[in-house]
Amino acid sequence: MTDDGASPIFSHSRRLQIEWGHCDPAGIVFNPRFFEFFDWSTALLFEAATGMTKPEMLTAFGGAGIPLVESRAKFLRPCRYGETVEIVSGIARLGRSSFDVGHRLMNAGELAVEASETRVWTARDPHDGQRIKAQPVPDEIVRRFRGECG
Amino acid sequence: MTDDGASPIFSHSRRLQIEWGHCDPAGIVFNPRFFEFFDWSTALLFEAATGMTKPEMLTAFGGAGIPLVESRAKFLRPCRYGETVEIVSGIARLGRSSFDVGHRLMNAGELAVEASETRVWTARDPHDGQRIKAQPVPDEIVRRFRGECG
Amino acid sequence: MTDDGASPIFSHSRRLQIEWGHCDPAGIVFNPRFFEFFDWSTALLFEAATGMTKPEMLTAFGGAGIPLVESRAKFLRPCRYGETVEIVSGIARLGRSSFDVGHRLMNAGELAVEASETRVWTARDPHDGQRIKAQPVPDEIVRRFRGECG
Amino acid sequence: MTDDGASPIFSHSRRLQIEWGHCDPAGIVFNPRFFEFFDWSTALLFEAATGMTKPEMLTAFGGAGIPLVESRAKFLRPCRYGETVEIVSGIARLGRSSFDVGHRLMNAGELAVEASETRVWTARDPHDGQRIKAQPVPDEIVRRFRGECG
Repeated sequence: MTDDGASPIFSHSRRLQIEWGHCDPAGIVFNPRFFEFFDWSTALLFEAATGMTKPEMLTAFGGAGIPLVESRAKFLRPCRYGETVEIVSGIARLGRSSFDVGHRLMNAGELAVEASETRVWTARDPHDGQRIKAQPVPDEIVRRFRGECG
Repeated sequence: MTDDGASPIFSHSRRLQIEWGHCDPAGIVFNPRFFEFFDWSTALLFEAATGMTKPEMLTAFGGAGIPLVESRAKFLRPCRYGETVEIVSGIARLGRSSFDVGHRLMNAGELAVEASETRVWTARDPHDGQRIKAQPVPDEIVRRFRGECG
Repeated sequence: MTDDGASPIFSHSRRLQIEWGHCDPAGIVFNPRFFEFFDWSTALLFEAATGMTKPEMLTAFGGAGIPLVESRAKFLRPCRYGETVEIVSGIARLGRSSFDVGHRLMNAGELAVEASETRVWTARDPHDGQRIKAQPVPDEIVRRFRGECG
Repeated sequence: MTDDGASPIFSHSRRLQIEWGHCDPAGIVFNPRFFEFFDWSTALLFEAATGMTKPEMLTAFGGAGIPLVESRAKFLRPCRYGETVEIVSGIARLGRSSFDVGHRLMNAGELAVEASETRVWTARDPHDGQRIKAQPVPDEIVRRFRGECG
């Protein structure tokens, strides 16, 4: 059920221009912004796999969200206001209910930030709608990530 | 039911240190951050009046939120990283369901930003829980803002 | 030197998808995020007029920035996570050193937020590099906004 | 020169109330905000050690900043709007120019987020003012972190 993560199972990339408001007084991206970029890249990765927006997907599959359990990032090169970067995101590991998303942010062809997220698929607890609990990633989404449909 | 706004009916102030992450490459507070400061100052103003946190207050009074309808700000002097500012917030007008909150952000004794928000008290529509509608500000909150209780 | 602002002199529009991280617990865009969107739309408006990124433009024209002096916004309809909105931004008034930028954020064909910014063109004070002062908007930029070149 | 990190050499804690604008549509803190909290906690840790604001400290010691090289966080329990949390931050490792800061965010007495940052002390390159380079953490700051002065 678990993959070795050597190469991403499914990936998606997007381009993004660094905005004035992303940067701090040193003129470089303020580090929490990178986590914001990656959070959205993960949503877009699911959109690319399912063809639905994240809220549509959660409704369609009975999910309550894909909360972050762990996050790591290495900041190798700064990114400055006005630069256009590319974020390549991929499913690096697909467990039963947890999975890893890897993000590589490239700036002018060089790796600027390398990050990894561990997330879980969750659903509302049928006995207590206020609580959410880890659930297996829906089969159809697993198949789409593995390129077994569409 | 409406006040002239000449002097705030009820006010609250707080001190805040300008953080690195609040500032942009010019070394001054990135303007959207001021709206974030003011949004929270409004929440604290209600806390000061009711003695409850905003979620407690909404539950206690059956409110669904106090959404922003209009916002204005004048940026008179920059605020820089490391400076400690004071935000003085007050109810400047108290209508039936709408009200104005004025914010004055002082830096080293001088007015740096002057802002005003128009908000409405809302509740869930009893016929359609997905919709919210404007409702009169609860009497008890009005009395507290007018200093008529406690 | 001043325009009546009846219709924008120069305009630019962009599409934007509302991200999870833009939204608050009510599931709608947290209001300071709109000011962040508009700030960047203004930078893109200058990019569209000059064909340069904002840092390139400031260097080319000896500018030190276009700081915000005043900002106003009306929030007419909420925007929710996953929705794609369009922001149409235009120069509404072009004074000697100050100018107004109007922003209309459309959601599903309806006006959701209407905002206006007053900004000034600034340059470093030649006698004191730490200070910036208002300067006339460079002629070439004025001509580009008026559609008199290119 | 390197410490084992078993217990922090120097620590600082602060209390923080979770704001509406920190939270996402799930009603919990949007994960990038935690990195913003930790960034500021690190600045406050240096302030506590040196008795100076971060800009004063950088000026006094000829530093150009303490950029983040690596960051890790585990999200164990959600934090909700209105809750007051405590962030305990400490120097977990003090190398020659790099050091680790550990952050423990406690919510109602339970560990909610555990994070660690690796940073470097930097100074401007004397031969090229545009470049910054890693430099040994100033002796006086090391002594203050070790409790050897004041």
